[in-house]
Amino acid sequence: MSIPYKTYLTEKQMPDAWMNLRAALKNPPAPMLHPGTLQPVTFDDVAPVFVGELAKQELCDDPFISIPGEVMDFYRMMRPSPLVRAYSLEKALDTPAKIYYKFEGTNTSGSHKLNSAAPQAFFAKQQGLTHLTTETGAGQWGTALSMACAFYGIDLRVFMVKVSSEQKPYRKAVMETYGASVTPSPSSTTDAGKAALAENPNSQGSLGNAISEALEAAMKTENCRYVLGSVLQHVVLHQSIIGLETKSALDMLGEYPDVVIGCAGGGSNLGGLICAYAADKVAGTSNPRIIAVEPASCPSLTRGRFNYDFGDVARTTPLIKMYTLGSGFKPHANHAGGLRYHGMNPTLSQMYHDGLMEAVAYPQRDVFDAAVLFARTEGTLPAPESSHAIKGAIDEAIKCRESGVSKTILFGLSGTGYFDMQAYQDYRSGSMSDYVPTDADLAPGFASLPSVE
Amino acid sequence: MSIPYKTYLTEKQMPDAWMNLRAALKNPPAPMLHPGTLQPVTFDDVAPVFVGELAKQELCDDPFISIPGEVMDFYRMMRPSPLVRAYSLEKALDTPAKIYYKFEGTNTSGSHKLNSAAPQAFFAKQQGLTHLTTETGAGQWGTALSMACAFYGIDLRVFMVKVSSEQKPYRKAVMETYGASVTPSPSSTTDAGKAALAENPNSQGSLGNAISEALEAAMKTENCRYVLGSVLQHVVLHQSIIGLETKSALDMLGEYPDVVIGCAGGGSNLGGLICAYAADKVAGTSNPRIIAVEPASCPSLTRGRFNYDFGDVARTTPLIKMYTLGSGFKPHANHAGGLRYHGMNPTLSQMYHDGLMEAVAYPQRDVFDAAVLFARTEGTLPAPESSHAIKGAIDEAIKCRESGVSKTILFGLSGTGYFDMQAYQDYRSGSMSDYVPTDADLAPGFASLPSVE
Repeated sequence: MSIPYKTYLTEKQMPDAWMNLRAALKNPPAPMLHPGTLQPVTFDDVAPVFVGELAKQELCDDPFISIPGEVMDFYRMMRPSPLVRAYSLEKALDTPAKIYYKFEGTNTSGSHKLNSAAPQAFFAKQQGLTHLTTETGAGQWGTALSMACAFYGIDLRVFMVKVSSEQKPYRKAVMETYGASVTPSPSSTTDAGKAALAENPNSQGSLGNAISEALEAAMKTENCRYVLGSVLQHVVLHQSIIGLETKSALDMLGEYPDVVIGCAGGGSNLGGLICAYAADKVAGTSNPRIIAVEPASCPSLTRGRFNYDFGDVARTTPLIKMYTLGSGFKPHANHAGGLRYHGMNPTLSQMYHDGLMEAVAYPQRDVFDAAVLFARTEGTLPAPESSHAIKGAIDEAIKCRESGVSKTILFGLSGTGYFDMQAYQDYRSGSMSDYVPTDADLAPGFASLPSVE
Repeated sequence: MSIPYKTYLTEKQMPDAWMNLRAALKNPPAPMLHPGTLQPVTFDDVAPVFVGELAKQELCDDPFISIPGEVMDFYRMMRPSPLVRAYSLEKALDTPAKIYYKFEGTNTSGSHKLNSAAPQAFFAKQQGLTHLTTETGAGQWGTALSMACAFYGIDLRVFMVKVSSEQKPYRKAVMETYGASVTPSPSSTTDAGKAALAENPNSQGSLGNAISEALEAAMKTENCRYVLGSVLQHVVLHQSIIGLETKSALDMLGEYPDVVIGCAGGGSNLGGLICAYAADKVAGTSNPRIIAVEPASCPSLTRGRFNYDFGDVARTTPLIKMYTLGSGFKPHANHAGGLRYHGMNPTLSQMYHDGLMEAVAYPQRDVFDAAVLFARTEGTLPAPESSHAIKGAIDEAIKCRESGVSKTILFGLSGTGYFDMQAYQDYRSGSMSDYVPTDADLAPGFASLPSVE
């Protein structure tokens, strides 16, 4: 059959249940631990901070979880997203490989983040909550949650990593247009923010610190909970809609990928994209390569340690067993703001540890080379984060050209770069850094790891 | 049948010919005249300035023109665009009306402009041209043409209306990322620009003046032609893909609109959207209302004159019979940069003159009220230009609520507002102006009209 440029499922073909990737693993991830007792956390431990239904999902081992009808309605406004055959990129690379990408950037948030923002805001509303807090790095999560909270009528406060809020002033304006209040982090409005400013008044901020601020603000606000857009299991659960749609579409085309590639920050986009193929791989019914692509400046998989660690800088979260650079790691300013987190989702960490997934890290300018080639051939201007996956896919396609072997390559184009034009300008002007941390740069982060392995 | 939120045609269902709206009119628009001889322009008159194939299309009366295979390939990367049922907006308005919109903003240019940019760059390439010049107001056309020129390997110079280039610095960065060179207009690089600066060194620029600069630059550059993104017949021709897709999709749903609403700048989006329904109306097989929505600050239809006029400020173009405020009209700064042109496509002007189309003008803040309501209910952040159509649709839907009569309303969501966040900030801060020109403000423009009726 002839393969179209774009394949959309019909709304009736959309999945009506999320897939719980960790339930598919033979060797499941270690449980989150209470930092005081070092016992696995319970629903009661996390319910004061998390929305109840999300806390249940976080701890749930069911293989599939039904998507509520109200969330399906929201998804139908924004989804299904297109699966695209990258004919023009293939031609530009002169490769025998077939390249597909799942494109999550056609909604206003510009990324996959809306897939989790919608159910998170819905479950909060269902519980009768009136306020939510969160943090955002690149701004995609904050934008997505602002949209969902506007839709469900919830008051939202966003702590935005300061360097991102300065690089992307209009991201803040989008969130405010949707009614959210946005505070650059570190801020003087929380104890965690004040502590960070006391240590370094010029702090550029980090996701880890913004999480601490948002957690603290949630605890101090009535009828409020804290929500977040990556790392945790329930977020990866919601993102499974990406991978389930992708597999349905590729099945319709009679295709099965030899390689599945996603960019890796906290892991939500990656975990969502790979879920169905990872389950096949674990079950032994197929053996696709699965590749996580991360920035060389924040290499949690390729240079991190597999250890229990805190999710935030203030060390207030439960302990999570994951690949981590340590909650004390201070990420260098980098234009892929969504990939500047010190850790990685525990299921993906376990898969990497068990050899079910590979990982590769690229310096920033190589990633932007790939981004511009992609923009000029395929049209779409990619987010810096997503461009890591593009770079990974291009490298695999070039290997195919060199070996003369055709492969089917699938990657996730998690978002668009409309709010990243400063990054593209820095790239073109030559002022973009290719910083890679030395072992000495990584040492303080590792020194901050708790002694729980 | 149950109506989905979004309806996509398959690639095989996409139209493979453009529809020539003026060929459908019983009373066709008057021909363009050579300003020296006052005779209808010929191919030879315009070929030195225009790409040959586009000049042919400009003068062609065939009812349909085949889309070249190479352009179809480009369209398949970016299209078909979704037809969306605005369930959430309907609910928010508590209206019995059914509201549909055709959404052209999912490509990186953020608007319908790519529909014409692709064939224009392709025909230039086919003719062996190496350079193109153009102007851009809001930046959507410049972005679209940059993308198309990157794809076809053509060197592009864009004259960008100065006020837009200052309101939207990152628009310029997108164009440059796609390899275009961008000059704020008026500039000191052309005689037309120098004349404008001599008259007013602080000139904010206008589309009419930017056209003069781009025309002049094209004439002075080897192997170069001038292209533009609205007003002319061949541009409306290319945009017919919008209306043809829309009619196919609504036919599949068993729907026929009672009202068709588009925003009106130079007319390309409007003419493209309405073409199929306008043809039905002319043929007498149906009688939908067709409504053009324009800004009260630049009211070419509602307060302009139906007269021959120049397309540009320097009075170098052929004379066009159209509704116009006069090429000497100086549009007030307004956030809908794409709707700041003094004239209107001649076919649409003729239709309006003959009572086949209505027109309405709204002040700026009312339009942004509609934009924010739409963003918060339907999710998508609309361009200020497109928000005029939203405001028109909302007003029709409210009439349905008041009368208790259900109607089927179709409007064109021509683009997204990602690069218009300064406008949204001004709206929220209360600093947005609701300027409406007085008759005295309009007088100088009318005084500039040539004495050819």
